Amino acid sequence: MAVGPGTLPEFFPVAGVRLGVASAGIKKPGRRDLVVFELAPGSRVAGLFTRNRFCAAPVTLSRQHLAEKAPRYLLINTGNANAGTGRRGMEDAIACCEALAKQAGVSTAEVLPFSTGVIGEPLPVQKIVNALPDALANTADNHWAEAASGIMTTDTRPKGASRQIDLGGHTIAISGISKGAGMIRPNMATMLGFIATDARIAPDALQVLASELGEQSFNRITIDGDTSTNDACMLIASGQYSGPEITLDSPHLPPLQEALKEIYMDLAHAIVRDGEGATKFVTIRVTGARTRQEALDVAYTVAHSPLVKTALFASDPNWGRILAAVGRAGIEDLDVNVLEIHLGDVCLVRDGGRAEDYSEERGQAVMDQEEITIAIDLKRGEVSETVWTCDFSHDYVSINADYRS
Amino acid sequence: MAVGPGTLPEFFPVAGVRLGVASAGIKKPGRRDLVVFELAPGSRVAGLFTRNRFCAAPVTLSRQHLAEKAPRYLLINTGNANAGTGRRGMEDAIACCEALAKQAGVSTAEVLPFSTGVIGEPLPVQKIVNALPDALANTADNHWAEAASGIMTTDTRPKGASRQIDLGGHTIAISGISKGAGMIRPNMATMLGFIATDARIAPDALQVLASELGEQSFNRITIDGDTSTNDACMLIASGQYSGPEITLDSPHLPPLQEALKEIYMDLAHAIVRDGEGATKFVTIRVTGARTRQEALDVAYTVAHSPLVKTALFASDPNWGRILAAVGRAGIEDLDVNVLEIHLGDVCLVRDGGRAEDYSEERGQAVMDQEEITIAIDLKRGEVSETVWTCDFSHDYVSINADYRS
Repeated sequence: MAVGPGTLPEFFPVAGVRLGVASAGIKKPGRRDLVVFELAPGSRVAGLFTRNRFCAAPVTLSRQHLAEKAPRYLLINTGNANAGTGRRGMEDAIACCEALAKQAGVSTAEVLPFSTGVIGEPLPVQKIVNALPDALANTADNHWAEAASGIMTTDTRPKGASRQIDLGGHTIAISGISKGAGMIRPNMATMLGFIATDARIAPDALQVLASELGEQSFNRITIDGDTSTNDACMLIASGQYSGPEITLDSPHLPPLQEALKEIYMDLAHAIVRDGEGATKFVTIRVTGARTRQEALDVAYTVAHSPLVKTALFASDPNWGRILAAVGRAGIEDLDVNVLEIHLGDVCLVRDGGRAEDYSEERGQAVMDQEEITIAIDLKRGEVSETVWTCDFSHDYVSINADYRS
Repeated sequence: MAVGPGTLPEFFPVAGVRLGVASAGIKKPGRRDLVVFELAPGSRVAGLFTRNRFCAAPVTLSRQHLAEKAPRYLLINTGNANAGTGRRGMEDAIACCEALAKQAGVSTAEVLPFSTGVIGEPLPVQKIVNALPDALANTADNHWAEAASGIMTTDTRPKGASRQIDLGGHTIAISGISKGAGMIRPNMATMLGFIATDARIAPDALQVLASELGEQSFNRITIDGDTSTNDACMLIASGQYSGPEITLDSPHLPPLQEALKEIYMDLAHAIVRDGEGATKFVTIRVTGARTRQEALDVAYTVAHSPLVKTALFASDPNWGRILAAVGRAGIEDLDVNVLEIHLGDVCLVRDGGRAEDYSEERGQAVMDQEEITIAIDLKRGEVSETVWTCDFSHDYVSINADYRS
């Protein structure tokens, strides 16, 4: 199950970025499970990684390599997360990078590894190494759709976004793919995102974009509150377009950021829409908070409440569960008599109880929709935050009770 | 579904405590849904209430009345929580207390109200008032089992515990009942607990007992992380036994506390065993923490992880999900290379990865059991905490998607 249409867009090729896909047989024979990004010399990469203390070996290694060299290759496997694998996990990640570096004629530190899948099983290094020649042989700038499929785990559909914009008379392309359907939560998720543009972006501007955009999109989605050991979201700027370098004070930065934000949002929302067992796409917007943390605490408490999520699944306007979640979000001096809660355009809660003009019919009409907004105005400050989540269905339990079998 | 046998114990009457049960027709005609505790003059009551900021009208009123007078009556209805009902909710709660006070010849402040059930619907005051004569007419000291049934909501079985102990040559009785199956979490739950003893306990000692025992039992259980608006756990000391008053420095306090703790634990664990859709009873023990908060953060992150809970439902020793939950519990400087995680007597994680001597067969053997312990030794301090939870099943979703229909 998934919410809304799930067709991939037409991908605009990004000059300087070629993608190769292969079947390494990591989990199932014949399935595409290995993706290589080949980046032209001069490309720059910045990213966000999981904050889980048990971060996977490839995350640790990617961070190290990124600090050492400008990457030339990204190597992504699905089917095995190489997490919880201790010292051997790191050796295995290094071995894969070394094999790719040797075949491609670059240094090991120019390869960033990414893994997703089951935690705690040794990475099948030999299978990956054996499939590398095939992946490298078929790199092309129009393999975005194949790559989107090649990084899926429990995803029911590939996820991508792409657009072209004009920046001071120069056309730039932005294309991206993402994956993830469970263990999704800030910070990051079993979530991988790769967004590339052919613009040339100064290193500090690229890091600011990667951080701010990742924070506003991938770090604001949650399916089950679980944070993966392997999350990563990488922003690639190949610099192959004909325009000038974009710096932090460039007039082109705001329109570029706006365009990138659309791509980030589409890719992040696509993960929620394909959330394990999801039948609803839910926006939770908290306004009138005193601090960002307070707004996020309320938003996530509602977003993670199993009672709210099962009510959403049932299309049941059981607003008492939303109210109870807001009440336990940890704001000690919250005045429940002034805050307001809306479901779509219907006011649920006002003056500490059910709004006078609320009716079950009006609440039901909103709940029957596939896309639902819950808006909570705390009326105690000026800060707003939005998170996105999905409902909690029978299929969520089925998918996660059967995952390894 | 529920874990383990669910038969009620033989209840020892508690001198000075009489229970009356009636059918007010609040949700379903003919179902017992109204319980009255009648306490002898001189009884003392102390308790713990929900920390949800949207606390229900009866919680607010019980707190007020408790501060004013020694209670003579407890009035409990199921089927309607009288929460999220604003100013009218408070008027309704007062009206019920007034009606009982008038019929029983006490003052309104001597009545403590408790409600559980659906949030946000007006309390059917007239139905409750109409049923009060029946409840008052049948009070008896041996109606504990009927009262245990009379406070149920989505519970599949009544919950009770009872014992007698000798205290310095005087026999005292302790009996208690509890209810709750969902929206259970510290602090408290859609959880009601009433524990009574005929011992005479000094007011400050009674409050210490109520606080400490509630904290160690009812405030350490979680089913879905949701905290109810209505939770309350009351400790009643009727003072009718023949022994001396028990004070904070009385030699009889420790054995009394030990006996009460058994009752509190039994009643709290019974709620988890009857957790909505529960098929497993899970103990999560964190040791080696630096602070209590840190131990609780880790324990609750594991206890609330939908991925861990669905793996428990599937009897799947997917220890990677436990590891990932520990890693995201918010301890910034957690050293994942020294901590250890055990499932029953099997070591899962050591040296940052799967334990060398772990085997799937050994993990499976533990997971196949109905009662499972997950032990996490952080190896960074001396503090320990334990919480109890259950798994996450298809039935949880069914129960909560259908609750109001």
